[in-house]
Amino acid sequence: MPPESPPTTRPYEKPQGERRGLVIVHTGDGKGKSTAAFGLALRAHGRGKAVRIFQFMKVPTARFGEHRAFEALGVPIEGLGDGFSWKSRDLDHSARLAAEGWRRAREAILDGRHFLVVLDEITYPLRYGWVPLQEVLQTLQTRPRDVHVCLTGRGCPPELIALADTVTEMRLVKHAFQAGIPAQRGIED
Amino acid sequence: MPPESPPTTRPYEKPQGERRGLVIVHTGDGKGKSTAAFGLALRAHGRGKAVRIFQFMKVPTARFGEHRAFEALGVPIEGLGDGFSWKSRDLDHSARLAAEGWRRAREAILDGRHFLVVLDEITYPLRYGWVPLQEVLQTLQTRPRDVHVCLTGRGCPPELIALADTVTEMRLVKHAFQAGIPAQRGIED
Repeated sequence: MPPESPPTTRPYEKPQGERRGLVIVHTGDGKGKSTAAFGLALRAHGRGKAVRIFQFMKVPTARFGEHRAFEALGVPIEGLGDGFSWKSRDLDHSARLAAEGWRRAREAILDGRHFLVVLDEITYPLRYGWVPLQEVLQTLQTRPRDVHVCLTGRGCPPELIALADTVTEMRLVKHAFQAGIPAQRGIED
Repeated sequence: MPPESPPTTRPYEKPQGERRGLVIVHTGDGKGKSTAAFGLALRAHGRGKAVRIFQFMKVPTARFGEHRAFEALGVPIEGLGDGFSWKSRDLDHSARLAAEGWRRAREAILDGRHFLVVLDEITYPLRYGWVPLQEVLQTLQTRPRDVHVCLTGRGCPPELIALADTVTEMRLVKHAFQAGIPAQRGIED
C-alpha cells in the first residue's frame, strides 16, 4: 500500500445550519453500539452536561465496568430489564418491565433537564412490541429542542432511522467469538 | 412492522477457546470509532484495569469532553499530533511527531503493564507513511499475551484487519452534518 498524501485543505464545507438536539442511532450486527453510546455520555459529561442512561436489556443490579465507571463519575445508568430475553422465564414480566422503563425514559427526555438521554438496546423491546414504536417516535418529535437522544440496538425500525439525524451501522467484519475466544471481563462487560 | 418473538434459547454457542488479549479495530466512514474506543476504555477502567489512550491526530493540549472525563477518572489520554493535518503547515513536523508518538505507544503495548492500550486515529499516520505499518504489525504480534489493543480510524490497512481479532466497520448511514447541522460541543468534542 503506497502512502497517501494528507489533505492540505479542509476536506468538507462547514455547515451553516443551527445547532439543536440530535437523534443518534447506533444499529447493526457489529460491536460498539452501546460502547459508543457510553463514549458519547462520557464526552458530554466531561463537558459538564447532564446525562442519563437507560438500559432496556440490563438488570437494575448490573455492575459491569461501565456501571462502576459511570458511578464514579456521577452519571446515572439504570438497568430497566430482567436480563437478556433468552434467560427470562416470564416474558409478560419482561414486557411489563420494558413498558414501565420506557415511561421513566420518556419522562427524562421530555422534562428538559438533560443534555443527552441514552436509550441503550431499546430496539429489542421495540421489536418485541413491548414498547410502542409510535410513542417513541412521537416523544422524539415533541421533545425539547436541545435534548440529544442516542438509541442503540440491532435491527432498528426503519421509521426510527428515517426520523434520526445521525445513524451509524456497526457492521461486523469479524469477531473474536467466531475464533472461539470467550467474552472477557473489562472488554465485553 | 409486526413484532418479533424474543429468543427463548441462547442464540449462540458459548466459545470454548482461551481468553487472551485482543486486537480490536474500529474503522469505516461513520461516527463512533473513537467514541466506542473511549467506551471500551471506560468499561475496562471500571473493572479496575490499567488503560492508556494515545491519540495520533489530537494535540497534547486538547481539552475535549473525553479528556476532561478521563482526567476525572485518572485514565491517561495523550494527544500525540499537531491537530488535523489540513491545519498543519509543516508536514515534516507532523510526521516526526507521529513517529515519536508511536515509539511511546509501542513501549506502552510491550511493557506488559496495561490491560488495554487505545491507538486512536492511528490509521491516518499509517496511511501517510508516518508510522511504519510493518512495525505496528510486528509490535501487535510480539506483545504480551494479555494486552488488548484497540486501533481506530478510517481506511484501516488490510494487513491490520487480517491480524485483528475483532473488526467493526462503522458505516455512515446518515449524519446531521449532511443536513447542515454544525458540530456541537459535548457531542462531537
